[in-house]
Amino acid sequence: MKFDHIGIATPEIEQALSVWRDALGLSVDSTDEVAEQGVRVAMLAIGETHIELLEPLSDDSPIGKFLQKRGPGIHHIALRVPNIREALSDLKAKGARLIDETPRVGANGCLVAFIHPSATNGVLLELVEHQH
Amino acid sequence: MKFDHIGIATPEIEQALSVWRDALGLSVDSTDEVAEQGVRVAMLAIGETHIELLEPLSDDSPIGKFLQKRGPGIHHIALRVPNIREALSDLKAKGARLIDETPRVGANGCLVAFIHPSATNGVLLELVEHQH
Repeated sequence: MKFDHIGIATPEIEQALSVWRDALGLSVDSTDEVAEQGVRVAMLAIGETHIELLEPLSDDSPIGKFLQKRGPGIHHIALRVPNIREALSDLKAKGARLIDETPRVGANGCLVAFIHPSATNGVLLELVEHQH
Repeated sequence: MKFDHIGIATPEIEQALSVWRDALGLSVDSTDEVAEQGVRVAMLAIGETHIELLEPLSDDSPIGKFLQKRGPGIHHIALRVPNIREALSDLKAKGARLIDETPRVGANGCLVAFIHPSATNGVLLELVEHQH
């Protein structure tokens, strides 16, 4: 298992880049728009992991609602697993509450699934299986 | 620059380990108590980074206050830098608000300093310089 990325909610990716890219010196690896989740994404490389900046496409998207409730900040962390279906079934067997019982397609074509924060110390946890 | 660790506040490390160690399969690398910060720490390895579980030694410690205000969850993220004094002076020159103007000694004898969330999209950011 590896640490895949940390997701940070921000009202504007351009403004957030002035911190993470310009002041801290990280570089943007890729950008993407996931219409299904109502989100624009910028991935910044840091060692073998990434910072994922998340900008909502609308106020009623998951990130839009998060920003209204909590303000900008860490939204979730993501762990990379070799087999996401196996990991979900393991966690379910151990009593963890899942948000996604089956994986769906996330940024950059990965398979992703979220675990409920009640199962993981208040942390919204995403599992990611890369397709390449 | 590398991703050093992610700090997760929890009322009880033992209980948190039932998730991160037992259900997710991560292993505990080290444990420590930093009296100066009123915190007990367990580090779990994940790839080249760590999950740092933080249990308060008292209600009026920084982690104790965080738990009362926000409940369990992600407290901060930490980036590893080669020279922490240089990084702090760079950030200050770029207008970032610092919590620690000079580094102090953190878990496992590292030099650490915190940047104010107002400078980093609502994220409490720690810089870490390892001494070995």
